[in-house]
Amino acid sequence: MARKLTPIYDRLSVVLVSTRNPLNIGAAARAMSNFGCSDLRVVRPYDVAFREAKSAVGASHVLRTAAEHGDVAEAVADCSLVVGTTAARNRKLEHKLFSLKDGARLMRKHSDRIALLFGSEKRGLSNHDLSHCHWLLRIPAGEEHPSMNLGQAVAVCLYELARDTALPTKTPETSPANAAELDRLGAILREALAMAGYPKAMNRSSDNQIRALVRRLRLSEKDAQLLSGMLRQMLWTIRSK
Amino acid sequence: MARKLTPIYDRLSVVLVSTRNPLNIGAAARAMSNFGCSDLRVVRPYDVAFREAKSAVGASHVLRTAAEHGDVAEAVADCSLVVGTTAARNRKLEHKLFSLKDGARLMRKHSDRIALLFGSEKRGLSNHDLSHCHWLLRIPAGEEHPSMNLGQAVAVCLYELARDTALPTKTPETSPANAAELDRLGAILREALAMAGYPKAMNRSSDNQIRALVRRLRLSEKDAQLLSGMLRQMLWTIRSK
Repeated sequence: MARKLTPIYDRLSVVLVSTRNPLNIGAAARAMSNFGCSDLRVVRPYDVAFREAKSAVGASHVLRTAAEHGDVAEAVADCSLVVGTTAARNRKLEHKLFSLKDGARLMRKHSDRIALLFGSEKRGLSNHDLSHCHWLLRIPAGEEHPSMNLGQAVAVCLYELARDTALPTKTPETSPANAAELDRLGAILREALAMAGYPKAMNRSSDNQIRALVRRLRLSEKDAQLLSGMLRQMLWTIRSK
Repeated sequence: MARKLTPIYDRLSVVLVSTRNPLNIGAAARAMSNFGCSDLRVVRPYDVAFREAKSAVGASHVLRTAAEHGDVAEAVADCSLVVGTTAARNRKLEHKLFSLKDGARLMRKHSDRIALLFGSEKRGLSNHDLSHCHWLLRIPAGEEHPSMNLGQAVAVCLYELARDTALPTKTPETSPANAAELDRLGAILREALAMAGYPKAMNRSSDNQIRALVRRLRLSEKDAQLLSGMLRQMLWTIRSK
């Protein structure tokens, strides 16, 4: 009778970004416990909210062991697939937007560590948060109330991920680049562009654009290194002339 | 773009039996609003809980119009299919017990009014409540924490009921780069590498490697142009120094 848990939970990290309400952090942790998913990461929570949630009576093991991070980059550094969630239907999107059903299928196929990001209750994920994501997942909702309660959204996502407990399909022969490797590549690219006088290379929105660009490339670890080496050589040449 | 709601919500009544916590009644109502499901019925709620939930700031239309009933019989009198929910795995069952997936499929096939019953937070549905049910639905949960938060359980059930009518995956309107664009990008990359003294940039096998590399990136037309522009600027800087 015992439910067989799908292995995806072993490689899934739920990342709550800028969550305000401690009850919501607790509810998300509880949904994770229900589904046997244990890696919770919290980015810039309202301090009080996080402390209150952690110390609440009956706080789950998931919540007590949750890691706190200063920014999204740090929270997802060891993940090679970063998925953002959104309730938006008409948002101007630079990302692919998958239905939960289709997105969950893709996530199950990914054999390496995955981060699933949930934004704040009010505003969802910011453009800066989104620039860390490879693609987006649409949280299903009706027309009148498009935004779902955080704990419920986490529960619905975890449910769909385990719904068909199929094992992941074939593992790709090359491991995908993780976020830290992509950030290194982005940093070299940004510096090379700045040194080369590329227009608008230095402002904040270009940071986001470069971060999103290197993610759209879906690089393997090997190709990320290859590209970094190429750019480093160009940068070195530009500098030394 | 508007979400097409599956007709099942028009004939579905969510019935909360002996719910204790007003926050849970509110959360269940909110999940219903999210999915466009509006018929909430409450049986023997703790009086205070129900009144508090109804009068809460921001109480949804669903909650404000919820009907209160003295017993299950009265609450489900107009329904021809009554489905109970349970997290139990080892309960001695007299009822058929369906997975959420299979149960939802049966419910969608039922063209008349359906009641979906959720029991109290602590004890679930009593044997008396269960005697009103045609069959049971197992709320999915892991092994450690078999009992799911009420609002989350409602959300997951409603999600599954509407799962196959969810909005499709949306791809941003970018066309993929064609071979000529990729070759232009490759040529600029090759020249920049050569000018920068990148090792082995000039032999034939590196030509092949660069051609394969730009193809592995699976670039959109727009991103191919973006990268070409970036590289051109670097190349220009390297040349002019």
